[in-house]
This record gives sequence, structure tokens and C-alpha cells, in this order.
Amino acid sequence: MDKKRTEISTLGEFGLIRHLTESIIIRNESTLKGVGDDAAVMDYKDKQVLMTTDLLLEGIHFDLTYVPLKHLGYKSAVVNFSDIYAMNGTPRQITVSLGISKRFSIEDLEELYSGIRLACDVYGVDLVGGDTSASMTGLAISITCLGEGERGKVVYRNGARETDLICVSGDLGAAYMGLQLLEREKSVFKGEKDFTPDFAGKEYLLERQLKPEARKDIIEALRKADIVPTSMMDISDGLSSELLHIAKESHVGCHIYEERIPIDYQTAVMAEQFNMNLTTAALNGGEDYELLFTVPLADHDKVSEMKGISIIGYITKPELGNYLLGRDGGEVELKAQGWNSLS
Amino acid sequence: MDKKRTEISTLGEFGLIRHLTESIIIRNESTLKGVGDDAAVMDYKDKQVLMTTDLLLEGIHFDLTYVPLKHLGYKSAVVNFSDIYAMNGTPRQITVSLGISKRFSIEDLEELYSGIRLACDVYGVDLVGGDTSASMTGLAISITCLGEGERGKVVYRNGARETDLICVSGDLGAAYMGLQLLEREKSVFKGEKDFTPDFAGKEYLLERQLKPEARKDIIEALRKADIVPTSMMDISDGLSSELLHIAKESHVGCHIYEERIPIDYQTAVMAEQFNMNLTTAALNGGEDYELLFTVPLADHDKVSEMKGISIIGYITKPELGNYLLGRDGGEVELKAQGWNSLS
Repeated sequence: MDKKRTEISTLGEFGLIRHLTESIIIRNESTLKGVGDDAAVMDYKDKQVLMTTDLLLEGIHFDLTYVPLKHLGYKSAVVNFSDIYAMNGTPRQITVSLGISKRFSIEDLEELYSGIRLACDVYGVDLVGGDTSASMTGLAISITCLGEGERGKVVYRNGARETDLICVSGDLGAAYMGLQLLEREKSVFKGEKDFTPDFAGKEYLLERQLKPEARKDIIEALRKADIVPTSMMDISDGLSSELLHIAKESHVGCHIYEERIPIDYQTAVMAEQFNMNLTTAALNGGEDYELLFTVPLADHDKVSEMKGISIIGYITKPELGNYLLGRDGGEVELKAQGWNSLS
Repeated sequence: MDKKRTEISTLGEFGLIRHLTESIIIRNESTLKGVGDDAAVMDYKDKQVLMTTDLLLEGIHFDLTYVPLKHLGYKSAVVNFSDIYAMNGTPRQITVSLGISKRFSIEDLEELYSGIRLACDVYGVDLVGGDTSASMTGLAISITCLGEGERGKVVYRNGARETDLICVSGDLGAAYMGLQLLEREKSVFKGEKDFTPDFAGKEYLLERQLKPEARKDIIEALRKADIVPTSMMDISDGLSSELLHIAKESHVGCHIYEERIPIDYQTAVMAEQFNMNLTTAALNGGEDYELLFTVPLADHDKVSEMKGISIIGYITKPELGNYLLGRDGGEVELKAQGWNSLS
């Protein structure tokens, strides 16, 4: 057979999913927003329902050499909650499907589930469905999360307008540094049975990688301050990649200041040790699960007063492009070098 | 480390998921029904929202040696729709997550998606979310489906009452026979590159295995006849296994008649050829995706008139147990020997 074969790498993850889902026709009245945001949005008059899903595969999304199963369960749930918060919604229900190979015992799965249940406890989410089946090889975890949004207050990627302020919560690059640290220790300990390196002084980096939190607190603070962002995403693939999504979907440009990107002390120390460019790590590291959002310029004072939020730049006309304004006064065009699990 | 290790096989799939999800506390007002039915049920005043999810893994749930990717896509979507119909709901939205290894090309994924999209077209469902990531080994497909149910008309597994009639749609055992046929041909053609055996006269069995349909028509016919079943499930693990679920959840017993189990001619011929017990195949075969439901005795005449529905038995007091009444007058206790993908 002379069948055409085009490698997936020619499109990349985002290109591929765009290609596969383009020209989809929406038929149901309740479908408000389909493919292309952190979550899909369904309209049920009384409420808007948000749905997001993640498929995590061993060897691709996690490495059980250094990820404890309980942490893995916690993180798997939290990254879904984060997608719901990124729509300005509240996560309510999750379902969990597992594919498990024979090497896992009931105790292993209890560990994994204890992490999932802890995340549900902390975030007030109900576990409403689960199934397990065999897997030929590694562990597969599929989690779907439903959330609720208020009519008119769900925030998409496409609402950023010229002069809006660009804000991020928390700090960036730490989860990436945590991963580098774990990978280095793994290669050092290669072959040894007990993997117990000394991570003293680097706890924050590890925690950001192994047990991230979703920014429920920021969403609540924004509500309290009566701020509805014009656009929002969570930072899973890296600040640069997410900013470009917002710029593209909103048909705008964006300028951010290098010196305003929030970075933790431990992240900076680690980048120095690894001889890595700190800004690159913060821009492209990924897995921060912080919120990136834009607010009208009129909200400047309100948002400035809020704890844990940094104003890092502003939205421009599209023709002005997407730039990082360097400490040295230079400009660098933003590129999406973020996590592309297909590359 | 002297860590306790209990093999998963000691609990089985249903036992395992019960074990992992027991004593879950429901916190959210919108959560009406959690783990333990074909779908979870959320209440949004205006509508009840149903959610179901399936994780399908290559080598466990499908074999790409003989399953065309388009059919696989179609079936993956349809089995989720079937779970929503089994709650007396209407499927509305699905999300699709794929894990794909390097051996798949863009054309392969187009094939898979064309099947998913065809299923969406046929059943009027919107594809609202999708993502793809790499996989170390085979193909992983995770589909979540949302559906709508009318308040007071969602049908659970636990509503069967004494004297209710037990009904099934269509016929049983054909998908299982189709699988046997494909497996036999696969072993015959082992090593040969072109897998194109002659299946003339067995098309129905193959279709039931490779391209099953969800019984939307039956749900519509029941609505038209103004019948709300007292309990319902779709038959994915085999009639026997599903009946025992209903009996257990409803705290009742069930008696069914062997001679009333609907079986297609091709299924019977194939069982003969394979020297298999036909009733066993129909009871335990699985993957029929027919609807199993109970209706009050008062609906006897209405349900008898409906096309494509067989009344196969009746609900009893729990102490009378769960029995198959044989053609020869003997009684056999029903056991769940259905598909257990963990065994």
C-alpha cells in the first residue's frame, strides 16, 4: 500500500489538535465553547458548566523513580482544578480512570487515591466516578473535572484588549528547576536502589514540581476585589507559550518587562548552579500552574494592592508584536519554546 | 523496606474500584450521584447533567491488527454515548484525549478522528475538547461524555422492584462471537502482512464487534411510549454481570428464561462452529451495548408491542436469588463471568 505518512512532529501538539478539530460544527444549544480554551463551557441557564480533561502517561508526564504515588495523585487532580480556576470557575466534580500494569499493588493504588482524595478535600471537589483497567505497560491516569461558572463571568483567552495590564500570580520557573534537580539526582543515583538524595534548602523547588497547588486563593481574591479579568489561562506550558495564546486568540500584541517577572530566590540560585538563563527558565519552564490574566487599565490600583500578583506588562495593538523588554533595554520577540510533549 | 503488597487480582475490577472509592464524602450541592452507575449525575436545577468516562488502551481494549482506526474512533465515542442513554439521558458533548506513540502518523489520527466525528454526527454530539500527547508505547484513548437528563426521569441501577419485567433490546452474544472470529483469523494469518480474511456471511458479527451502535432508538421509543424504566444499564460486561449489578443495587432477585434471551442466527451458527455454549456466550460475552432495563408489570402490554425489545424475565424478592431458568426446566444460578479486564 502506498499510503501517505506525515510525521506528527511536522505539526506539533497545538498544530495537531487544531488540525484534527478544525471545522467542527456545534449542534447543541448547551454547547457554549468547544475546543481551544482551558475548559469547554456548557450553558444550563442557571449555571455554566466547565469541563476539562487530562491524560497523564508514565514515562511521558511523570517518572515514578522520584515521584511518590500520593504526590502524583494530588498533582493529577490539582492540574485539572487549575484549568477550571483559569476560566474563573469553581471545580466541583472529577472522574478518575486508571490503566494499571501488574507491577502495581492495591497499596500502590491506595497511595495514588489518597493523593487524589486529599486534593479533593483541600479544594472541596467531589470524586464522582472512577474506573480501573489493565495496562500493558505503565500507569495511565485520565482525570476529567467539571466546574461551575457564573453566567457572564467565565473568562476566556480571547478577551484581552489594548492597554490591558498583564498580570501573573506567584512566581515562575521553580517547578522547572525542581524537575532539573530531580533529573540530575536521578542520573547521579542511577542503578542504586534507594533514591534518597539530600535536597536541603531546595524544598520549595521540589514542592513546586511534585506538589503544585491551583490558585483558588487568587480567584477568590479577584472576586472579592470585584475584578473580572478580560482574559485568563493557567501557566502549564510556560509563560511565553501562554501569553502567545492569549495574544493570538485576542488578536492583540503584548509587551512584558523582564525585570518584572516574579522569580523566587531558590529558583535564581538553582539557575546559577545549573548555569541556566534564569529568564529563559521563567519564560519557558512550564508546570507553574500560576494564573496569567489581563485586567483593564482602570483596575491598576486594585490589582496593585493585591498580594501575590505581579503586573508584568501590557497589551498592545497586534501590529506591535509580542516582546520581552530586557533589563538592558533590548527587546526580544517572545517565542513559544514551552513544553511540547510531542517533540 | 518491608512494605505490604496485595495483588490487585485479589479484588477484581469492581472490588478494586469499590475499595478505592468507599466512604467518599459528597460536598457539593450539584453532585446528585457519584461513583456506582453508568454515569455520574449533577443537578443544575434546570437540567440534570450526566458524565461518563472511558480510558481505552491498546493491547487491552483494542487490537490494531484487525481494528481499523476509523472504527476504533467510532466505537470509542459510541460506548460513551451508550452509558448516557443507559441513564435515560441524551449525550451532548465529548472530550477526547489521546496518547500516541511515534509509529502513528497524522493520517492515522485523521482516520481515528474521522470515526469519532462520524459518531458525533450520527448521534448529534459536540466534540468540545481534545488534547494529544506522546505515549511511550501504544495508543491510549480517553473519552469523557456529558449528557442531559430530565429531572425525575434519570434512570439508575437501583430502582428495580418485585414483579418488574426484565427487558433487553436487540440481541446478545454477537459482538463476542465477532471477537472470537477476529482472534481466530489473526492467529491463522499470523506473520502475514496483509490481513484480509474472508468474512462473507459473518458481517453482522463483525459489525457488532467493530462498529457497535448505542440504542438511541430504544430510548426514544420508550419516551414515545411514555415508559420510564425503573432501572437500566447498558450491557458492556455481559447480561449476567449487569443483571447482578441491578439485583444488588436494587436489593432484589431476578429470574430470566434461557429461551427468551434474544440471539441472532449468525451468533448461533458461529457458536456451533466454535463448539461454544450459545447461552454462555449470550450471558457473558459482553460488548453488546444493548440496554437492559426493568419496567413495572403494568407496562407489560406497552413494552410487548415495541419492536426490538424482549421481555426475558422478572424481578423477585431478594431471597429468591438470581437464576436462569433453563430450556430443560432446570435452574442455574447467575454468576458474573463477564469481561474482567483485570483478570
